[in-house]
Amino acid sequence: MSRSFSTTAVANSIRAKVMLYSQYGQPDQVLKCVSHKLPSSPKGKEVLLQTIACPINPSDINQIQGVYPSRPELKPQYEQSEPVAVGGNEGLFKVLAVGDQVSGLQEGDWVIPSNVNFGTWRSHVLSEESALMKMEKTISANQAATIAVNPSSAYQMLTLFEELKPGDWFIQNGGNSQVGRSAIQIGKKLGLNSISIVRNRDNLKELVDDLTALGATKVITEEENASKEFGKTIAQWTNGKPIKLALNCVGGDNCTNMARKLGQDGTLVTYGGMSMKPVTVPTTLFIFKNITAKGFWISANIQRIPGSRENSIKAVQKMMEEGDLVDVKMHENPVSADASEEEVYQAFQKALAKSNQGKQLVVFT
Amino acid sequence: MSRSFSTTAVANSIRAKVMLYSQYGQPDQVLKCVSHKLPSSPKGKEVLLQTIACPINPSDINQIQGVYPSRPELKPQYEQSEPVAVGGNEGLFKVLAVGDQVSGLQEGDWVIPSNVNFGTWRSHVLSEESALMKMEKTISANQAATIAVNPSSAYQMLTLFEELKPGDWFIQNGGNSQVGRSAIQIGKKLGLNSISIVRNRDNLKELVDDLTALGATKVITEEENASKEFGKTIAQWTNGKPIKLALNCVGGDNCTNMARKLGQDGTLVTYGGMSMKPVTVPTTLFIFKNITAKGFWISANIQRIPGSRENSIKAVQKMMEEGDLVDVKMHENPVSADASEEEVYQAFQKALAKSNQGKQLVVFT
Repeated sequence: MSRSFSTTAVANSIRAKVMLYSQYGQPDQVLKCVSHKLPSSPKGKEVLLQTIACPINPSDINQIQGVYPSRPELKPQYEQSEPVAVGGNEGLFKVLAVGDQVSGLQEGDWVIPSNVNFGTWRSHVLSEESALMKMEKTISANQAATIAVNPSSAYQMLTLFEELKPGDWFIQNGGNSQVGRSAIQIGKKLGLNSISIVRNRDNLKELVDDLTALGATKVITEEENASKEFGKTIAQWTNGKPIKLALNCVGGDNCTNMARKLGQDGTLVTYGGMSMKPVTVPTTLFIFKNITAKGFWISANIQRIPGSRENSIKAVQKMMEEGDLVDVKMHENPVSADASEEEVYQAFQKALAKSNQGKQLVVFT
Repeated sequence: MSRSFSTTAVANSIRAKVMLYSQYGQPDQVLKCVSHKLPSSPKGKEVLLQTIACPINPSDINQIQGVYPSRPELKPQYEQSEPVAVGGNEGLFKVLAVGDQVSGLQEGDWVIPSNVNFGTWRSHVLSEESALMKMEKTISANQAATIAVNPSSAYQMLTLFEELKPGDWFIQNGGNSQVGRSAIQIGKKLGLNSISIVRNRDNLKELVDDLTALGATKVITEEENASKEFGKTIAQWTNGKPIKLALNCVGGDNCTNMARKLGQDGTLVTYGGMSMKPVTVPTTLFIFKNITAKGFWISANIQRIPGSRENSIKAVQKMMEEGDLVDVKMHENPVSADASEEEVYQAFQKALAKSNQGKQLVVFT
């Protein structure tokens, strides 16, 4: 289901609104919205884009805070007195116009950035064609706007570290996170069995039913994960088959107990540390069980493995097309692409303020 | 310098004394020494051996305690009323006589077991030729008797996990352990720079001088390893070159602080846990520094990589021949190969009782 858009009449120039910062700090203190003129007729290999939607990812916030290892360079641009960078890494854009040397894109096409640090928090942008990846309009705009990070991370982690075959088992904590929910669905599509660890809660049954409906083989609580006794139940589920892969975005005891579930030669992959506690693994798991512990960071991984970004996006998109990977619940914060700087600023700040209450998207209408 | 032996006159039969156990427990409680007759003329592919020397390794004790994952099977043998196993994994033997189908060994040759769980704590043994590896007499008997575990572990760890090139750096804790001292010397021979972490002590300077004489590039204390400030000193030493490999036999904070010294894409290898504390690694080291944490267990490694045992023993032996790897200080506990069961028992118990006071060898004279 593609979102439909009216093709904006292209005047001589366009006022692009850009969310930028000149120093690191809290987004509500350092971000501002400025506008600058873009030519309505791009030249050569340039492509003029209007933003359709862009998410607020935790790493976007960490970049602005200055605590994320990969960040866009602060540089002189947009006639600002100080060097600045533009917020946001993920987003979906539509092509308004193309230069005469652009070969693979045309007006109305959907594109996403080919790489990180694109600066997606803006209404319009003039980009080189080479920095863009065309998206077929076979999935929703919200899916396309958020395909590059969370579902792609889940796909890459499930296919990169172990050669998992249909029937194999993996285990993950943060089962209800964006990546966790993607991993459940992608895992099922790949024929894998999954055990997802979630926090206990009042409406646990609802969550278990929800994740099971997505394709989770088993959903367990942190308490069950911590129980030695419960290990026997898991061994019954897996019929003694070794669990080959564990995906960790929590750390601390949760991660340690999850690592104990791994079979001989299994791999523990850490991609987050929500508990703020480190990864602790008993010595014997390394020596006698030959566990490997690794990290996963999609920004580095797509640099390390050429083509991995495009490949995983294509694989994930196909799963979305076929209904194997369903829309994540997202909160849309709409604003007109023609709105004022202040209106665009408010839309982003509203989304940022709610960013710990579910996935936020700024949607340009 | 090879130890010289009188070739024992071979009578019709030999009384082999064997240190064995029928249940797991403390060595001073469950071990006993029994004797059994061996034919003095081996048949077919059999080789009759007399033990020259065998060490007490911590893992030998753990096997007898029943807490080591790899252990010899308890089985009916030596006319015992219960199933038994023979202690010891490492040792040097001399060939007393060979069967008529033995092709690669002759009387007087030195051999070591080809694999673990051989049961080396005995005066004599009848073995298949295929279970033995011939040792050239180019190194001392003590070196040959202890070549297969500690120095081979150091060699395998320095060559297996990272493709280290001359000039590269590695770091290790337990710098004064048997493996640590081997790693210093083997590392130097391979052209590597090393940082060895040791516990602070009254005679620290003596130890630093000792390890430096062995070839240690730098020796630091646990306190220096724990100091953030001291990281700058290390960066000056390495001239900013990333440390690629860290060898951990301690765990706990020591290991965590050592892991922080690793450069991008570095590997932390755990082969022991002397502090009894687990391996704890900050989440960011996995995600943003792309650290890999693995385990090393020589018993499993030589199964996994065919030829690795023989290759590492040959490489280490060559270093010993050329004086690059010096004799470890060992405490010899002598006993005659013709001694009584009680005398052999006492020699082993004496060595076991002192096994936390430096490397103990039982030497058959």
